[in-house]
Amino acid sequence: MLGTGLIGLFYTRTLHRQRSRDLVHVVYSRSEDRARAFAEAEGVAEWTTDLEEAVAHPATDTVIVGLPNHLHEETIEVCARHGKAVLCTKPLARTGAEAKRVLDTVERAGVFGGYLEDLAYTPKTLKALQLVRSGSIGDVTWARSRETHPGPHSAWFWDAKQAGGGPIVDLGCHCIEIVRNFIGKDNRPLEVMCWADTLVHPIEAEDNAIALIRFESGAIGQFEVSWTFRGGMDLRDEVAGTEGTIWLDHFLRTGFEAFSSGAGGDYVAEKSESASGWLFPVGDEVSELGYVDMFTDMFDAMDAGRAPMETFYDGYVVNAIIDACYRSAESRQWEPVELADWRGAGVERIARARREHDGKTVIKEEKMPDGRLKLILKDESTGEFVDVVANAAPVT
Amino acid sequence: MLGTGLIGLFYTRTLHRQRSRDLVHVVYSRSEDRARAFAEAEGVAEWTTDLEEAVAHPATDTVIVGLPNHLHEETIEVCARHGKAVLCTKPLARTGAEAKRVLDTVERAGVFGGYLEDLAYTPKTLKALQLVRSGSIGDVTWARSRETHPGPHSAWFWDAKQAGGGPIVDLGCHCIEIVRNFIGKDNRPLEVMCWADTLVHPIEAEDNAIALIRFESGAIGQFEVSWTFRGGMDLRDEVAGTEGTIWLDHFLRTGFEAFSSGAGGDYVAEKSESASGWLFPVGDEVSELGYVDMFTDMFDAMDAGRAPMETFYDGYVVNAIIDACYRSAESRQWEPVELADWRGAGVERIARARREHDGKTVIKEEKMPDGRLKLILKDESTGEFVDVVANAAPVT
Amino acid sequence: MLGTGLIGLFYTRTLHRQRSRDLVHVVYSRSEDRARAFAEAEGVAEWTTDLEEAVAHPATDTVIVGLPNHLHEETIEVCARHGKAVLCTKPLARTGAEAKRVLDTVERAGVFGGYLEDLAYTPKTLKALQLVRSGSIGDVTWARSRETHPGPHSAWFWDAKQAGGGPIVDLGCHCIEIVRNFIGKDNRPLEVMCWADTLVHPIEAEDNAIALIRFESGAIGQFEVSWTFRGGMDLRDEVAGTEGTIWLDHFLRTGFEAFSSGAGGDYVAEKSESASGWLFPVGDEVSELGYVDMFTDMFDAMDAGRAPMETFYDGYVVNAIIDACYRSAESRQWEPVELADWRGAGVERIARARREHDGKTVIKEEKMPDGRLKLILKDESTGEFVDVVANAAPVT
Amino acid sequence: MLGTGLIGLFYTRTLHRQRSRDLVHVVYSRSEDRARAFAEAEGVAEWTTDLEEAVAHPATDTVIVGLPNHLHEETIEVCARHGKAVLCTKPLARTGAEAKRVLDTVERAGVFGGYLEDLAYTPKTLKALQLVRSGSIGDVTWARSRETHPGPHSAWFWDAKQAGGGPIVDLGCHCIEIVRNFIGKDNRPLEVMCWADTLVHPIEAEDNAIALIRFESGAIGQFEVSWTFRGGMDLRDEVAGTEGTIWLDHFLRTGFEAFSSGAGGDYVAEKSESASGWLFPVGDEVSELGYVDMFTDMFDAMDAGRAPMETFYDGYVVNAIIDACYRSAESRQWEPVELADWRGAGVERIARARREHDGKTVIKEEKMPDGRLKLILKDESTGEFVDVVANAAPVT
Repeated sequence: MLGTGLIGLFYTRTLHRQRSRDLVHVVYSRSEDRARAFAEAEGVAEWTTDLEEAVAHPATDTVIVGLPNHLHEETIEVCARHGKAVLCTKPLARTGAEAKRVLDTVERAGVFGGYLEDLAYTPKTLKALQLVRSGSIGDVTWARSRETHPGPHSAWFWDAKQAGGGPIVDLGCHCIEIVRNFIGKDNRPLEVMCWADTLVHPIEAEDNAIALIRFESGAIGQFEVSWTFRGGMDLRDEVAGTEGTIWLDHFLRTGFEAFSSGAGGDYVAEKSESASGWLFPVGDEVSELGYVDMFTDMFDAMDAGRAPMETFYDGYVVNAIIDACYRSAESRQWEPVELADWRGAGVERIARARREHDGKTVIKEEKMPDGRLKLILKDESTGEFVDVVANAAPVT
Repeated sequence: MLGTGLIGLFYTRTLHRQRSRDLVHVVYSRSEDRARAFAEAEGVAEWTTDLEEAVAHPATDTVIVGLPNHLHEETIEVCARHGKAVLCTKPLARTGAEAKRVLDTVERAGVFGGYLEDLAYTPKTLKALQLVRSGSIGDVTWARSRETHPGPHSAWFWDAKQAGGGPIVDLGCHCIEIVRNFIGKDNRPLEVMCWADTLVHPIEAEDNAIALIRFESGAIGQFEVSWTFRGGMDLRDEVAGTEGTIWLDHFLRTGFEAFSSGAGGDYVAEKSESASGWLFPVGDEVSELGYVDMFTDMFDAMDAGRAPMETFYDGYVVNAIIDACYRSAESRQWEPVELADWRGAGVERIARARREHDGKTVIKEEKMPDGRLKLILKDESTGEFVDVVANAAPVT
Repeated sequence: MLGTGLIGLFYTRTLHRQRSRDLVHVVYSRSEDRARAFAEAEGVAEWTTDLEEAVAHPATDTVIVGLPNHLHEETIEVCARHGKAVLCTKPLARTGAEAKRVLDTVERAGVFGGYLEDLAYTPKTLKALQLVRSGSIGDVTWARSRETHPGPHSAWFWDAKQAGGGPIVDLGCHCIEIVRNFIGKDNRPLEVMCWADTLVHPIEAEDNAIALIRFESGAIGQFEVSWTFRGGMDLRDEVAGTEGTIWLDHFLRTGFEAFSSGAGGDYVAEKSESASGWLFPVGDEVSELGYVDMFTDMFDAMDAGRAPMETFYDGYVVNAIIDACYRSAESRQWEPVELADWRGAGVERIARARREHDGKTVIKEEKMPDGRLKLILKDESTGEFVDVVANAAPVT
Repeated sequence: MLGTGLIGLFYTRTLHRQRSRDLVHVVYSRSEDRARAFAEAEGVAEWTTDLEEAVAHPATDTVIVGLPNHLHEETIEVCARHGKAVLCTKPLARTGAEAKRVLDTVERAGVFGGYLEDLAYTPKTLKALQLVRSGSIGDVTWARSRETHPGPHSAWFWDAKQAGGGPIVDLGCHCIEIVRNFIGKDNRPLEVMCWADTLVHPIEAEDNAIALIRFESGAIGQFEVSWTFRGGMDLRDEVAGTEGTIWLDHFLRTGFEAFSSGAGGDYVAEKSESASGWLFPVGDEVSELGYVDMFTDMFDAMDAGRAPMETFYDGYVVNAIIDACYRSAESRQWEPVELADWRGAGVERIARARREHDGKTVIKEEKMPDGRLKLILKDESTGEFVDVVANAAPVT
């Protein structure tokens, strides 16, 4: 385990719980104090302030990179050199070019590379993906992912040089991969339109952004990220398709509601803003945020010799889309997603079978307040639209 | 009452309920059958197929225009000529230019012009506006309005020539005005970025669109409209501010949930797709959709000689923004909102007081899982960001 | 309008809004200050401290009684003597015997008596009753009404002598009538089991109670009332039937959610406990609480010469059930509802058609995780139960 | 693993997932076909139709009993005889007497006994218990647990002789233990009032029941169980305390909502009634239902030589309360909970510090719509209650 910040803590606790076979043996931090304290608190056998030592350690078969973004590339090079499997926290890199180099490094070395995109692995997302793949909502037309909170918990996130940007990098990377999973990984992201602004915080990076991602099938991805949201951590996804829709709330409205006068005063949930009034705790945070299923998939994939659901290639695509977001925010127009290395199979344009009634195209049928069935028909020869009230007349 | 379609029916029923002082005396439809049937069913004293007769009728002191979009301009001219107050359904016109002529007509004639934008008047919206204006959520940074359903209920909506467009016109007009109310009517809409596509229905107009509207204060408006949503009518608004957030659900999750095996089989709510399974009825549709408060404001405004909350000028601004949406969907870049006639007072850029701790800028404070308070500080002289763990240390 | 407390205020504001034809002409309070202040603030033409003068006033055709419970009987006698229609706030009286005398007084005098049970008239309740009556949820088996909050807002409520009891009287009267509406007014309430205790407040009356009401059809009513609930005003109803279920939330989760840091600091909603954190305002309180539809029904009924939905007879039945609650809380067993005057038509026992499969009774059919259909059958001759896996086999 | 029904399947899948150290080695079913099929499908090494063989098997260090209720006692005797740790599914037995014999058997043999009450272990329940124990909601005054669905999935449940009763046994056992956890296991359950009826299904056992459980502290437990609920599986818990409240929804409203036209047609969740319309899937069912945390606690407890959170003693208390429920349903009055063996520490009566204002007892303080603070005070010498409007006056 490289890194002893909040993410390293969440990862380690996830691995050490629920009678897992997989344990953290060595923890690295550049600070001796933090390394030692972390090892003691979390029951990790050894600690070190020498990154290469941690990687090379004989008890290490897999390295988990939980370091700030600007350290990913060099760290992964060390792992590759030592032939160790590497699992890297999100985002893979600060730019598409950096991500491509990381991807190449790992693939050249032939080591396992897992992209730790936890929010693609939440139990709700996995079940929702199953629904989408089973055809329950038809062709996906739109996927929205929203991730907003009052701002990150470590100083380096706020420094655009170390982080590579603001919430587009920090949170947008989650949203993009959620959107890609719902819209389909074979569906090429073609171009991006992005708005970004620094509205509230005294920083250089953006603190709010919205982006649209247009895919090959015509489907549109949408994400909203913010470091100025008040009220906790808002993680919601919505998917619309030709046959249905899916709404996911991962954090604020999950069937767990509490009111407290403030007595007690305990920790409620990550980024919650208060311990009194109406509170919305989360049952098992690391499970609900996808950490449990993510590591299961990673280790199962290694054992089975298959690729995990989220690979370094996915991390690269995410970074390429982020690059397009920043270019678009600057150019103020749609910008192409530059993917020199596109591996998707390609998909068809969204389509729906045309239905006929009396030789005309059925545009819509609707039940009126009085119970009658109304059809809206288009006469393709004249281009005219007409209403027909058909009492449950059959449509073929 | 001009028009006997769904909107004319909703308007009339709204006026005739709850012991109101205001009644519909004459109804007009170009179809004799519909005019007569409507008058009988709704208890309207007189009906006619002659529009000018209905307007000129001595019992008519106010004309309500519930006709398709392409007939608004000529109808309002008739009302102005006869010196009658006129309340026009949304959108005011098909384009900004048409809306400007309508506005000029009414202002020149000196008659009362009310813009029937019902969704700005829903009880929840009115209460939420009160919260916003009282400062409860601070400066508004973002307002999202989403209006999607499976498609409109009359043939003319689907014909781009008569309607002036697809859901951008039909539903976007609501969203834009909701956004303007939350962000502030003195806050000038500067430019628009819009995506539109025809994904599912066999029509020329768009059936899905998303737009961003950038305002003078830096605040961003966002709307999503669709005629391909499955699951009923999704009317949701979200507002974020520097001190809070507001979420409104007007139709699908209002504290009214029902499951039915399908027995009974009654009308549930406008655009609901089924009468079995889990259903989400709305208590009092015309009230929840704002019709009641809208007409109250209109008639109270007339009685008091003041402007209503929603005027023809607002309708004109909405149409100008819609124009920019269509231009942007075409040009694929941000397009200015062209408002030859801007009457807003103007607003300041969103700002937040800078707070200091130990001579550094406070970027964020957060309670950690272990209860400690963490401050993120920026040293403005060096540009560096640091974490400080301060146990409830005072911040000034 | 007799009374200038919170209820008098809500009633008057309800009557004076939304362009109503019905206005309050005279207001009475025993305090001159309050009468004058109320009249001025609410635009009431005249005020008096002489109750009989207010009733007898020529402008008064209907008297609205908004006084504490112990004053209802004598006040209604005055109204009856003067031949005025009388609308009385809930509960009708403190006991069933008192309620019966009030009922008799009004019926003997032949004046209109309306029971102001607002929560039977909320828009959601009215729509839900429509669903129930249309058969959407089949035969009602269970109706739960929960009304809890941190305690009432006037001193007299807390005094058992004036109020007739604690929350069983104050809130239970609402719950009982909601339950009766859902289960059916022809369905005789047979007996009651009630638990009551004084857990938190330093008072003599109960501050928490739960009761079960068994009806003739076998259906069970359930209510929970409390003056110690923290978190606002919790008004929820649930109904279960053989074909479906209905869940209503009138106050805390109505599709209106807000978070505020506390800036602004406005009034949020009746009995809300805070103005910061997550808040759950209600759009239009007097409408959502049923006041609007209640007065509409009352005045429409008077105009039409019909009985309103809620009559003094209903008030009497409610008091009789409350009496049984107190007796049961004391005796610790089921107590009969004593209704010397029962006017319901009577109903059948809940029943469901028996279905057969292979000559056996079908107890249940269920779709298993693997998609197969499982039938549970009972052999009536042997009394044995068996599972049968039937792949979509027809059941008749 | 003894038993190959739905519960055996859920248990096995829970144990075999998420990289667990603990595996099922032998499965027993009295049917050879089911034993073999189960072993193959779930990757269990060995199967047998000889129960004692499965228990005695050298690879078996822990026996999991997933058999019908009437087989628990004899099976656990076999386990005790062979000195194997035993985990028994809920309910422990059919009656308190039977449960006591089971408890004695295990304690005499000195083997580990874990009571598999999964719903006490859901992630939400565990987090909520943490909130309660930290004092966030003060003293618990009321806990409600509701478990209703359209009826169980195996024939033996419906046979009162094998099951020991209807939903009071099947579902009430969950509710009782949830209630006990929230109200506190040292808080002695004193007496029970229960209503039960067979309203819909053609069976001898009850299909609906409601019970109240009065505890030593004055707190009241409440449960509602039904085999006739329509709309899926309704698992909700509510807890009220002197300082707050907690609402849990485990199954139907968990932040996962989907609408489907019916395309696809997949399995949605346990006991869901449809695959079209609005659906409420659950992310990870076995985790959300508590299976994961339950087995973790059981095996961790065995490893650590401590008692698990849910012991056979708890199972015995649950059965004693169920006995009282059936007695009360029969006698129609409160019935004592007969606990010959009570091991709880005992608790104090719920109490709240009395506060004073001007020498009077403060009953309540409330913010009025106009912003003023209203105090309700009781003069203990006269017994009178008065309202005082105090503008933010300090209360001590």
